[in-house]
Amino acid sequence: MARTASLSGYLELLPAERLVELHLLDTLREVFEAHGYSNLETRAVETVDTLLQKGEIDKEIYAISRIHDDDAAKEAKLALRFDNTVPFARYVTENAGHLAFPYRRYQIQKVWRGERPQAGRFREFTQADIDIVGEGALSTRADVEIAVVMAKALQTLQIGEFTLRVNSRKLSEGFYQAIGLTETAAVLRAVDKLEKIGPDRVARELSETAGATEEQARQALSLAQIRTADTSFASQVRELLPADAAGAELLEEGLAELTEVVDELNARVPGRAEADLSIARGLDYYTGTVIETVLRGHEELGSICSGGRYESLATKGKRSFPGVGLSIGVTRLLSALVDSGELGASRTVPTAVYVTLRADEDWAAAQDVADQLRARGISAEVAFSAEKFGKQIKYADKRGIPFVWFTDGDGGHEVKDIRSGEQTAADPASWSPPAEDLTPQIIHKTAEG
Amino acid sequence: MARTASLSGYLELLPAERLVELHLLDTLREVFEAHGYSNLETRAVETVDTLLQKGEIDKEIYAISRIHDDDAAKEAKLALRFDNTVPFARYVTENAGHLAFPYRRYQIQKVWRGERPQAGRFREFTQADIDIVGEGALSTRADVEIAVVMAKALQTLQIGEFTLRVNSRKLSEGFYQAIGLTETAAVLRAVDKLEKIGPDRVARELSETAGATEEQARQALSLAQIRTADTSFASQVRELLPADAAGAELLEEGLAELTEVVDELNARVPGRAEADLSIARGLDYYTGTVIETVLRGHEELGSICSGGRYESLATKGKRSFPGVGLSIGVTRLLSALVDSGELGASRTVPTAVYVTLRADEDWAAAQDVADQLRARGISAEVAFSAEKFGKQIKYADKRGIPFVWFTDGDGGHEVKDIRSGEQTAADPASWSPPAEDLTPQIIHKTAEG
Repeated sequence: MARTASLSGYLELLPAERLVELHLLDTLREVFEAHGYSNLETRAVETVDTLLQKGEIDKEIYAISRIHDDDAAKEAKLALRFDNTVPFARYVTENAGHLAFPYRRYQIQKVWRGERPQAGRFREFTQADIDIVGEGALSTRADVEIAVVMAKALQTLQIGEFTLRVNSRKLSEGFYQAIGLTETAAVLRAVDKLEKIGPDRVARELSETAGATEEQARQALSLAQIRTADTSFASQVRELLPADAAGAELLEEGLAELTEVVDELNARVPGRAEADLSIARGLDYYTGTVIETVLRGHEELGSICSGGRYESLATKGKRSFPGVGLSIGVTRLLSALVDSGELGASRTVPTAVYVTLRADEDWAAAQDVADQLRARGISAEVAFSAEKFGKQIKYADKRGIPFVWFTDGDGGHEVKDIRSGEQTAADPASWSPPAEDLTPQIIHKTAEG
Repeated sequence: MARTASLSGYLELLPAERLVELHLLDTLREVFEAHGYSNLETRAVETVDTLLQKGEIDKEIYAISRIHDDDAAKEAKLALRFDNTVPFARYVTENAGHLAFPYRRYQIQKVWRGERPQAGRFREFTQADIDIVGEGALSTRADVEIAVVMAKALQTLQIGEFTLRVNSRKLSEGFYQAIGLTETAAVLRAVDKLEKIGPDRVARELSETAGATEEQARQALSLAQIRTADTSFASQVRELLPADAAGAELLEEGLAELTEVVDELNARVPGRAEADLSIARGLDYYTGTVIETVLRGHEELGSICSGGRYESLATKGKRSFPGVGLSIGVTRLLSALVDSGELGASRTVPTAVYVTLRADEDWAAAQDVADQLRARGISAEVAFSAEKFGKQIKYADKRGIPFVWFTDGDGGHEVKDIRSGEQTAADPASWSPPAEDLTPQIIHKTAEG
């Protein structure tokens, strides 16, 4: 992917790179479906109104319009989706009568953002989301399940060590209220920048935008510095509070929920999660559990998998559909792992066997051979013409096709492993390649710990 | 899909409908990969210039722009792709140095057209394409291979009887030249409307737009009425020609190529193809073989799979990349087959087993049971809370989940088939559902002939 994209910010993969991406997406699909998640695809376009309801992202939206639009006034203004969550919430409210709740879905689709392109930032990229949505209420166990399924999915991808960093908006907001900070949105926005701009500048922003005193800023920053592998964060939070402030309802809810989530994660995916009270998430719609994920050795990527609980993103009249979800930024992850050489494919095509031609008129007979292989799940191509064998072998070699097939015209068949040069007699009705050569293999240069 | 779309022309599927679509797409992928085709995805956006080079489709294009575009002047005008062929040709010329030719690729992506929505016409829809592109030259065998692979793919989909209707632009254009009609593009456009407007109006259009005499119009219409299951079309064409017109080079090439294609199709996929000399294809870039496909019982869909040979769609300086391809209109096909009840899914979720809770605190133990099943490829969900068993069973029943799991808390396990009511002791480490219940089954109401 060192090639320059012909449109800045738009990544297009070569065949071998796409094989790696397909492997990642197939693996995710397998894990999600094993846990009962149904696939969903929503339309690429939303009304601008739907998109703008959900936060300050108007600069990033791509609007669409017909080039010759005769009746523009009659039609709603449309734009491309910038994530999978907002379209999902819209889909749920529109189709609530046809869905069974709790509804588990996965959604792997492209999204578009008109951001200024830079290294690892794309204008079109694939997100892989899972969400559970309930009707009226949804158990905190849904938060646990979502995090466990994603942790298992990331494990199965074998891309290295990662940590889910978990917090609760209820805990943070409850704490800010308990110490007298009422501009909780402004506090969250400031604290969210901790890793990027450091504690001094966060303290200044807390004072400027959230009206924090020096003492309040110090307390807010102390909270954000709590990070524990187990549930001991709870006692650390209580220690930070003045005696008369304890017991605030929101804070207690947050402490209880985060304790449950961290406890269950430690039990089900040991060593994969920690409580990190600096996690805030930029988007406005989160109301409880929030999660980011860091991939060791690739901290430059930021969070590779993020999300959380949203209590009221999807509502329809008096009905509400609380949900929780996590989303993997597939394109950025793939591009980093392919560029670093950590992931690659053993060949550029699905083909396992290239059937050569001894004479031009053998083409139909060669297709019969290939069809016998294909019928047994072995991908095969046939040469178009009887070029010199050296040239036909080079064709296979250039693509990494491991086997070349020869037919002598009298019913005799031989197959050659072009890596070892070994050539043996073979029957197209029964010969199979070794299992590891059947489909392109994904090469992991970093072993999973 | 009887529901009204919230945006006219944009179809969104319910979970069971999406399972049917996934089954179709998985089947296509399997057939394409068995024949050595690599997957490609191109970006959704192209420059308007790229799209407009390739025909009169400007009315249908969706342009995109950033809502707050500070430097619009600096950026190329962009629009969403309207097919997969034009982006593929652009990708091939841009990446020629990184690709091995002949290059076989399949591409299954959404495309967008701002057409006025009507029954079975969508503004966003999925196309599944296969193409072979060569460098400098490409064997007519590529035309045969493309048609054979698509015929096998359509057979494997088990959607009923279909016929590939094959023609050659060289044959048609060569014939028109031979009878003195030189405005071949105008003639093709008129003849392309034969099925829609009938012979009398085509004759009038031929006279008005292509300057045809009554005799020339009669001959052009006679050619378009030739339809043969074998290669006897060739002698019928020769009979139509005046004695002094025979032997035109383009016509002879067309006759030879179409004879080869029809012959090989009859040998490899008997009964699936015929020569139909009315086929013209609207798009300008076709230069040789052209193909449309009719699905018996669904003639109202028009062609479900179309394409052909394009000699010069992709060029780069002096290098040319001739290609041939076919494209299935997946969304229209799926929507027709689901609406007619011909295709359906046996359940709405991937889940095979729903693990119930006897008591709320059994959740972790129930997840252990589910994990044992998942590890053996059996999709399982766990209840969030210990509601009454009747309610838990109803949860599974509503989704079509075939099996419900019970645990007695002392290591005893039972599994119930909720269709038969049969309940038996089971070991989570070894129990498996019958193969036909492992994943959702696709139900075909019309048997494949």
